[in-house]
Amino acid sequence: MTSGQASRPDPFALPDVSGATVGIIGGTGEQGRGLALRWAVAGQAVIIGSRDPQRATATAQGIAELAGVPADQVTGTDNETATQADLVVLAVPWPAHAETIAALASHLAGRIVVDCVNPLGFDAQGAFALAVPEGSAAQQAAALAPQARVVGAFHHVSAVLLGDLAVPRIDADVLVIGDDREATDTVQAWAQLIPGMRGLYAGRLRNAGQVEALTANLISINRRYRSHAGVQITDV
Amino acid sequence: MTSGQASRPDPFALPDVSGATVGIIGGTGEQGRGLALRWAVAGQAVIIGSRDPQRATATAQGIAELAGVPADQVTGTDNETATQADLVVLAVPWPAHAETIAALASHLAGRIVVDCVNPLGFDAQGAFALAVPEGSAAQQAAALAPQARVVGAFHHVSAVLLGDLAVPRIDADVLVIGDDREATDTVQAWAQLIPGMRGLYAGRLRNAGQVEALTANLISINRRYRSHAGVQITDV
Repeated sequence: MTSGQASRPDPFALPDVSGATVGIIGGTGEQGRGLALRWAVAGQAVIIGSRDPQRATATAQGIAELAGVPADQVTGTDNETATQADLVVLAVPWPAHAETIAALASHLAGRIVVDCVNPLGFDAQGAFALAVPEGSAAQQAAALAPQARVVGAFHHVSAVLLGDLAVPRIDADVLVIGDDREATDTVQAWAQLIPGMRGLYAGRLRNAGQVEALTANLISINRRYRSHAGVQITDV
Repeated sequence: MTSGQASRPDPFALPDVSGATVGIIGGTGEQGRGLALRWAVAGQAVIIGSRDPQRATATAQGIAELAGVPADQVTGTDNETATQADLVVLAVPWPAHAETIAALASHLAGRIVVDCVNPLGFDAQGAFALAVPEGSAAQQAAALAPQARVVGAFHHVSAVLLGDLAVPRIDADVLVIGDDREATDTVQAWAQLIPGMRGLYAGRLRNAGQVEALTANLISINRRYRSHAGVQITDV
């Protein structure tokens, strides 16, 4: 072994995030609810954020019941308060993406912010990728909240499968995109709290756009094969 | 079963392409050689095209020897002649893409043309997706050869693994992109001639760009994990 290899960190060594909290901005949507449910089952404390705190509270209660965890492990609040968690997940619909981040920018400073938003359009022929001036949703988040530690992840995980606890394992790789190694390692560790899932580093933020857009292809696959398609990476 | 379901074609039923020939434009490059080798092993007749027919002939002889097949099963010629095969594969480097297709456009009319070119740039931070005015290499091919039946496929298959017959199976899904069902079905069938590989329909040509660009992420994955990463789709 050369000293160059010895000094290179083990890519599979990830931090321990048990005991950490997650706040989900737009946590009343399908994707946010699904992630919240799985992380609640894994024992994490989850904060559901919404523009409507009452709705967030009702969603949180439903998730705690489904997960079979104490009611105070999953709580609902406004989006600003939800940003105080250890990990912040942006799960808003694309049309609300820029506005939501701009409004929360000061709260996101210094935080690890996971963007799982897919900028897609839909017409009679199915889904297609929308052009994003910044290159991707994740890059837009980084531009609007320049002090946040933005990571792209969880784009391809089916909300239907996340929300169905009759599906015990979700065998899929989460492609984790970002420029901050500690932040991407942390998000990989959060992915691996969900049975079957693996978090893999998959490039810098400038390569987020195609990962987001690939969701349009998964929708095409689902339509052809009547599936809930996910992605796995071979040879890793 | 409703009549609507009954009339829908089985997405896994693919045509029999054994006995068909493939012509590989830019077949002396690493990706073209790798595909040629695997198809030769599978018993297909392969025509290597190149701007330099002598080089194509030498490459073809090397492939036939490696594959252990009769010399006349793998032949070398110019790119124009190679377009006369049943299936035409474009495996040129991105900088030669537009020029090559424009020059061959009349020869490609009516033919199934598989574009496996990835428009990528490279710098000190690795690979990144290049902007393509037409949206993707495949869409550029369709624009420059409007009578060709363009399909995008084989973007993510490692040329290193293709070229190494000590690797008996390549367990990877080939995402097949296109607007012509008969053409995409045919290309899926060609993918499945390679042991371990599965050809999956993955959307229309307008969704080709992100599939091509995802190769930049696979390169990032390879760098982090020292792998030859490929893609598999779950739940199909």
